[in-house]
Amino acid sequence: MFQIVWPPTPTRRDECKWAGKDLVKECANFIRVLQHYNQSHLYACGTGAFHPVCAYIEVGHRPEENVFRLVTSHFENGRGKSPYDPRLLTTSILIDGELYSGTAADFMGRDFAIFRTLGHHHPIRTEQHDSRWLNEPKFIGAHLIPESDNPEDDKIYFFFRENALDGEYSGKATHARIGQVCKNDFGGHRSLVNKWVTFLKARLICAVPGPNGIDTHFDELQDIYIMKSKDPKNPFIYGIFTTSSNIFKGSAVCMYSMSDVRRVFLGPYAHREGPSYQWVPFQGRVPYPRPGTCPSKTFGGLESTKDFPDDVITFARSHPAMYNPVLPINNRPIVIKTDVDYQFTQIVVDRVEAEDGQYDVMFIGTDVGTVLKVVSIPRETWHDLEEVLLEELAVLREPTPITTLKISTKQQQLYVGSALGVSQLPLHRCDVYGKACAECCLA
Amino acid sequence: MFQIVWPPTPTRRDECKWAGKDLVKECANFIRVLQHYNQSHLYACGTGAFHPVCAYIEVGHRPEENVFRLVTSHFENGRGKSPYDPRLLTTSILIDGELYSGTAADFMGRDFAIFRTLGHHHPIRTEQHDSRWLNEPKFIGAHLIPESDNPEDDKIYFFFRENALDGEYSGKATHARIGQVCKNDFGGHRSLVNKWVTFLKARLICAVPGPNGIDTHFDELQDIYIMKSKDPKNPFIYGIFTTSSNIFKGSAVCMYSMSDVRRVFLGPYAHREGPSYQWVPFQGRVPYPRPGTCPSKTFGGLESTKDFPDDVITFARSHPAMYNPVLPINNRPIVIKTDVDYQFTQIVVDRVEAEDGQYDVMFIGTDVGTVLKVVSIPRETWHDLEEVLLEELAVLREPTPITTLKISTKQQQLYVGSALGVSQLPLHRCDVYGKACAECCLA
Repeated sequence: MFQIVWPPTPTRRDECKWAGKDLVKECANFIRVLQHYNQSHLYACGTGAFHPVCAYIEVGHRPEENVFRLVTSHFENGRGKSPYDPRLLTTSILIDGELYSGTAADFMGRDFAIFRTLGHHHPIRTEQHDSRWLNEPKFIGAHLIPESDNPEDDKIYFFFRENALDGEYSGKATHARIGQVCKNDFGGHRSLVNKWVTFLKARLICAVPGPNGIDTHFDELQDIYIMKSKDPKNPFIYGIFTTSSNIFKGSAVCMYSMSDVRRVFLGPYAHREGPSYQWVPFQGRVPYPRPGTCPSKTFGGLESTKDFPDDVITFARSHPAMYNPVLPINNRPIVIKTDVDYQFTQIVVDRVEAEDGQYDVMFIGTDVGTVLKVVSIPRETWHDLEEVLLEELAVLREPTPITTLKISTKQQQLYVGSALGVSQLPLHRCDVYGKACAECCLA
Repeated sequence: MFQIVWPPTPTRRDECKWAGKDLVKECANFIRVLQHYNQSHLYACGTGAFHPVCAYIEVGHRPEENVFRLVTSHFENGRGKSPYDPRLLTTSILIDGELYSGTAADFMGRDFAIFRTLGHHHPIRTEQHDSRWLNEPKFIGAHLIPESDNPEDDKIYFFFRENALDGEYSGKATHARIGQVCKNDFGGHRSLVNKWVTFLKARLICAVPGPNGIDTHFDELQDIYIMKSKDPKNPFIYGIFTTSSNIFKGSAVCMYSMSDVRRVFLGPYAHREGPSYQWVPFQGRVPYPRPGTCPSKTFGGLESTKDFPDDVITFARSHPAMYNPVLPINNRPIVIKTDVDYQFTQIVVDRVEAEDGQYDVMFIGTDVGTVLKVVSIPRETWHDLEEVLLEELAVLREPTPITTLKISTKQQQLYVGSALGVSQLPLHRCDVYGKACAECCLA
């Protein structure tokens, strides 16, 4: 089999050790970015013993070429791509030769940002040292979702959880977030130079409505799966959430529609006059073009964010958050587990054609090495869904958290990652249960 | 046996029915106040078919007199004493011929207030139509606790839960509260006339500290027991709390010291500049005498709240809440139950001398008709308590909520009230377990 050995240099390893880090757990080169770069190469970044480093991996054009080789002639600085600390949650996506990543760009792990690096443009990032933009985020995922049929409107959405805004909540709380940037954002001209000017974020709510209006929240976003639909602009967003409490442990799956996401980003901006004020919906005049809109021929003459008027940039800088949250479809989770010893960690979804129509089969990984296979079926209407547990599979021999779930609809396989390694299992095992019935095809 | 029949008048009952109320569940005379008035009489108030009414009950000086009779020659208006709606939670305490009550004073059940009625003074109440003072409160208990050896400083404390202050919390939440008024408060002179000028309230926290500073709160105050100690100024306060969630059900007992309560009432007042501001600790000059202080010789010439300067009254009117909450002893509950199908409803506490010292034995009633007998024992230090369940008694034949628990240390009996009636059981049943061991004496 092919294998790449890519340790940090002895110098880096020594420096890491001298900085008081653990040689085994922290001073190795933990790979945190692995993306398709082009038809023959991957792009990979690792923590490089607290000194992030990136390189290309040659894989050839076809499997038959048997190529799998680290391109050692050209290493790149991995700052803003991979974190320094392997424990920090990071996400990245490589699109058209540019790497979008949510990570921390410093040794101390405090300077969190959403970056765009690589490619021939100047790197660009979120505003620094401003907790309104990002407040100790834990990045979960990043996806490109087109806004219209015009690629100029393409947006990259980041999913993360972070501390609630100062003044948004009495006491400490975690909020789940969806953030957006435009693919063609090149930063401001006089202000927000080399910073995103189209960055916006909104809270993702996953909560069970309660009596007296007091809801039970699942705020700790753990994973996101984007279920593509026929219309590429309108995929469904599946999110795995857990509770923030150490007393009441529970997990939930919430589902969001892009139309709800867009309605929130087109709604009022969160605004406060000063530190001792509350956050309120901004009622004043919003400058044109509305902050968050991509520069595009759809909106007249502005071809670049560098052409945006100063008042747009100034407004964008102080209003990165939307006032309204994104509510899940049906205003409640589609799956809830509260009476069990485990929590959900990962999700992938497979769209299955059954005799009586299409079903989204969720594969939910847990922190005890099991995978739940669940469908959400309408009882009477689409507003009254019933969760049906089809199977509960003990995939790992030991009760180890599942850290990655990947699905290949082509291979009809599910790939399960954990500290123990990678397992694969077939998506559907109709043969185990018998043939030719809709129920079994969901099994 | 003695029995008093005290129905509403036919006219009241008809009016109640015409108002659309239920004849059986709402239009009877539900007794909501029953207090010792003097050595020979009780004072009782009922809802009187949505028209509160009060009367004296003659009980004689001694049981041997065999007197138990409603004084029908003199009925009094029960407004501000008993609620109109029998379902509203109300509390009252009669001290020196004056009735202190927390209730709603209108037919619609919206005008909640803490009242002082009866006696020869003008009735006095909390400010009307001001959600900063009271925000849909559910009253749980009222107790006189002396502040010093000077009776002029005596305070009556009210325990209730209510909606969180507007702007105190994003979303809806219940907060548990302790409120205070001075026994010798006769209202203001020019402003707050016949209103409490010494009313203050603070939040009672009952929460389990969590990782990342996100605590698990038990906010729904259900019952309070005041455990007297040798120093009448410093009893311990036991509170029963449940969760606000309908998904995660749990109960807890938290214990508070009066020194912590007084520290909070002497701390910063909650202040906000206007509707879109946050609540912050008031940093400005607090007028003298400090609002919340009882008029007393201890503090110079002011003999009555009517002598208080205008700036004190103005400040008191707009600052009824304290900024800091009262935290429980050890910053966490002494008893928690989360993995069960029932919730706590009531508590009384008995102080027991065991061979190795004093123990507070808690009797905790549940909503399934059981009584838990629990002690909280220090493991190593007083900061590390272990809850020990001594007994779990199925007191009621059916799983009915226990609505009242009363203790008689004289009779060594526990009285258990529910919709089924009243039961009694001995506090300690050492004879069941054998003799002469500390463990059994706690049984």
